[in-house]
This record gives sequence, structure tokens and C-alpha cells, in this order.
Amino acid sequence: MSFRERLQAASERNGSLLCVGLDPDPARLPSHLGPADDARTVVAFNRAIIEATADLVCAYKPNLGFYLAYGPAGVEALIETRRLIPPEIPVILDAKVGDLGNTSIAYARAYFEAWDFDAVTVHPYMGEDSLEPFLSRADRAVFVLVKTSNPGSGDLQDLLVTDDGATEPLYLRVAARARRWQERFGTCGLVVGATYPRQLAEVRERCPDLPILVPGVGAQGGDLTATVQAGLDESGAGILINAARGVIYAGSGPDFAEASRQVATDLRDAINQARRR
Amino acid sequence: MSFRERLQAASERNGSLLCVGLDPDPARLPSHLGPADDARTVVAFNRAIIEATADLVCAYKPNLGFYLAYGPAGVEALIETRRLIPPEIPVILDAKVGDLGNTSIAYARAYFEAWDFDAVTVHPYMGEDSLEPFLSRADRAVFVLVKTSNPGSGDLQDLLVTDDGATEPLYLRVAARARRWQERFGTCGLVVGATYPRQLAEVRERCPDLPILVPGVGAQGGDLTATVQAGLDESGAGILINAARGVIYAGSGPDFAEASRQVATDLRDAINQARRR
Repeated sequence: MSFRERLQAASERNGSLLCVGLDPDPARLPSHLGPADDARTVVAFNRAIIEATADLVCAYKPNLGFYLAYGPAGVEALIETRRLIPPEIPVILDAKVGDLGNTSIAYARAYFEAWDFDAVTVHPYMGEDSLEPFLSRADRAVFVLVKTSNPGSGDLQDLLVTDDGATEPLYLRVAARARRWQERFGTCGLVVGATYPRQLAEVRERCPDLPILVPGVGAQGGDLTATVQAGLDESGAGILINAARGVIYAGSGPDFAEASRQVATDLRDAINQARRR
Repeated sequence: MSFRERLQAASERNGSLLCVGLDPDPARLPSHLGPADDARTVVAFNRAIIEATADLVCAYKPNLGFYLAYGPAGVEALIETRRLIPPEIPVILDAKVGDLGNTSIAYARAYFEAWDFDAVTVHPYMGEDSLEPFLSRADRAVFVLVKTSNPGSGDLQDLLVTDDGATEPLYLRVAARARRWQERFGTCGLVVGATYPRQLAEVRERCPDLPILVPGVGAQGGDLTATVQAGLDESGAGILINAARGVIYAGSGPDFAEASRQVATDLRDAINQARRR
């Protein structure tokens, strides 16, 4: 089964376009789980969050940086976290990888084979050949950074580019490239931040058929209804709304997992309400 | 001491602009060192290469991907490798990182503090705020990908951009941004592939004062004399010519370290000869 089919199945089963970001921040882990600097505490935390939310999400997305910050034991915790997620729910490794030749092959082998993630996020700057070891895996997926949610994302992404006779911002040219990669490989998705709903609508218009991962609702301030409306495809799906901090740190006491279940439920439902507008 | 001062000191002490890439490929490790899939074999290999070349280089550059491919034990091997390098030689972690906010902070803490690397390579696509946790470390350095050595690097990097009244390829706009980051933070360097000597000369003209890391001589086919001539700054230095496979896999028998010492010596001397042209 392709990533797209697995994503759609999970999304329909749970009635959800919500993706939960598993980003363990030592400053915010519930203290009763154990020492915050111990990677086993991370696994205990993730296990509880996954058990509390696995019927509410279409995907999970751990960010590599938070795990590498724990050193070798963090990588172990990341691999263990992946194993704790029910196999029918796709898991996107947010690694923002972008390298070349042999090195890309080494990364793809680690992320897709050894660690068994279903998808990765990638930097487009080095071009198609740098991404081919990821794109060419028919049963996995690649989410290309197009317009990121951070305040300074316009620094390069909004630069005006003249290409193929058109003059438009770089992020739209990247979206056009990704569409071409989709035609060639069939495994491509996009990343557009919820903090830029107008740009999300432009990207959706350019790429009517690609899944779009949308981080930045909640803590980063993206407006949910505007985001969902801007990102939906013609079938009324095609987006993964990622929330991390707002969901996983909803509580800090012994009931933290129930608190995160409550926030995840509300968010899933609010997304679905926005879909029906 | 700043990274620039440490780099200059190492370069002058060893009379060298050669940077050796420590990229352990399981298919090419000498078999007598142990099982190729055991990260301890990687450490034994790196130890021998470092001992054989530490008086011939201005820096080392391990690429994160080759270590992550070994899983948690690979991260341990990477940290151990860093410790094996004499403290007076700067070590650049080729992580090609680019993330935002809290995640960038987590990466910077891992790479600079916990693992104690002197510099990292970064993707510019997400803009200045995404790089600030790296750039703001006065005693470390950040090498920004400008024009990469892979065949498809032109895919985005050569797109024509109109910015500040000028129309020119994206990679030159990235170089202009990096120059501004250098003015603000004082910790910035660039990456330009040896496979593009003309573009290297353009970047050098634009950024007369920034160190440029130049991968892609040897295995990737870059011409050494053209590269050195194009990249030197006014002082006749300012470049780090990176070689990995050509040096570290010069031999595969019990004398592999001596073979790599010989190639590294020849390469250092050839670079110095090209400097004097």
C-alpha cells in the first residue's frame, strides 16, 4: 500500500485530519514520569500520549532534533517511539533532511529501512537528484518544505523568481517542482505553515492533488478555520494539520494524557467543523 | 578564541587548507578492523585515519548521515570520533540542518554543546531566524549551503531572482544574505562545490572575507587547481578543500592509514602548489 492509501485509511478510520507532533521538550515533560534528561522518560511520555490519541489522529510526526538532543539514547527513544505507534497510522519523521549522493542514500536507509518511518520532511534547496533516494521509494513519502511557518520564512522563500516565463515567489516555484516530482515518482507531499493561509491557498491551487502537511496552528498562532479552508483539496481532505505543544503539553500532572486526549478531540472536531463550512 | 582564529591557527601550523571528510561507508571499511555493521569498527577506522592525518589538515568534517545510518551506536561513534580529534583542530559537523524556533535551539544544543562540534553546515531555505540559534554562538561557526556540488544543484540554486534591484541566480542572493549574517553575527561561512569553479569565483567576489568550505574534489570530479584559484581570498587562504573518499579509502589493507596519509600529503601539497600560482 502506498503512503497516500495508508494516510487516507487512517484519516477515514479516525475521522481526522489531525497529526500530532511528538516533540519531547525536557523543560515540559511531566515530572512524575522520571528525570527529564533521561530518554526513557521520553518513551514513557510518548507511550502515554500515543495510547491517549491513537484513535484521534491521521498521523504522528516526531521531530528528529528533540531526540538528537538526548544523544544516542534519544535515537533509541525515537526508534522505540516509532514502534509504539499502531502500524495502521503513518508516521512522518520531521528530519528536514537535504544532502547528496551516497549521503542521501545513507539517510534514506536509516529513516525508511532501519527505523521504518513512513515519510520524511526534506529541504528542496539541493534539487531533485539530492532527493531521489527518498522520492524513489514507492511505499514511502517525502514532504518538501515549501513555505515554512516561521516569521522569517520570507527571507528566501518570498524572493521573486523568473522561471519558465513566469515571475513569482520562490515558494511557488518550489511547489511547481514538487508537482513535477509527484508526476515522476508519485510519493511527494508539501509543507506549508498555518501562519500563511493566503500562501497555503496559492500552493493548493498550484498543486490540487498533493497532500500538504500544515504545522503552526496553536502555539505558533495560525488560525485554524482559515488554514483548513485554504488547504483542503477537492475531496475535502488532503491536509494534515500538525499540532505538537498545544496537544502533548495540555497537562503536566498525573492526568496529562487525558488532558492531551481532550485537546486532541477538540482540535480534531474543530478541524472537521471547518471542513464542512 | 573564535572559530576563524582556531581555523587559521590549525591551517598555519599544518601548512594546509585540506579538510578531511570522515564519512564511514560500511561497504568500504577495511575488513580486518571488524564487522562493517558495528559502529565500533567505525571508531577504530576513524582513530587510525585521524592519527595518520592530524598533522596534515586544517579541519575534519564528519557527515551526520553516515553515523545515523548506524543508529544509536552511530551517534555514540560520532561523539567518540569528535573526542579523538586533537582539540586544536576544528571539527565541522556536516549536518545540513535547517529548522525553526525550539527545534533549532535543540539542534544547536546537541551539536555545539553536548557533542562539542566547532561548526555545522546549514540549509538557508528557512531564513535568518531559523539559523539564529547557530549563528549567535560567537565561539562556533555556521557554513551556509550556497552552491552545492551535486549535478542537479542548479534546479533551485540557479533560478534567476530579482531582489534589491538586482537580477541574479539564487545562490548569489544566498551569498549576499550570508554576508549580511556575517556582518551581524561574525560566525558565518559558505559551502560551494568544487564542481562549479566559475560560481565559486563569483561567490568569492561577493564575499571576499568569508571562509568557504569546498567539497567535491576527487570522487565528485572537481578540478583542484581551478577550484583553489577561484576560492582563495586576498590573503591566499580562506578556503577549506574537503576530500573524503579519495583520502580515507586510499587503501583497504592493513596499511590503509599509511595509504590515506600519503594521499592526504599529496593533496595538501597540490593545494599549496595551486595557491602559489
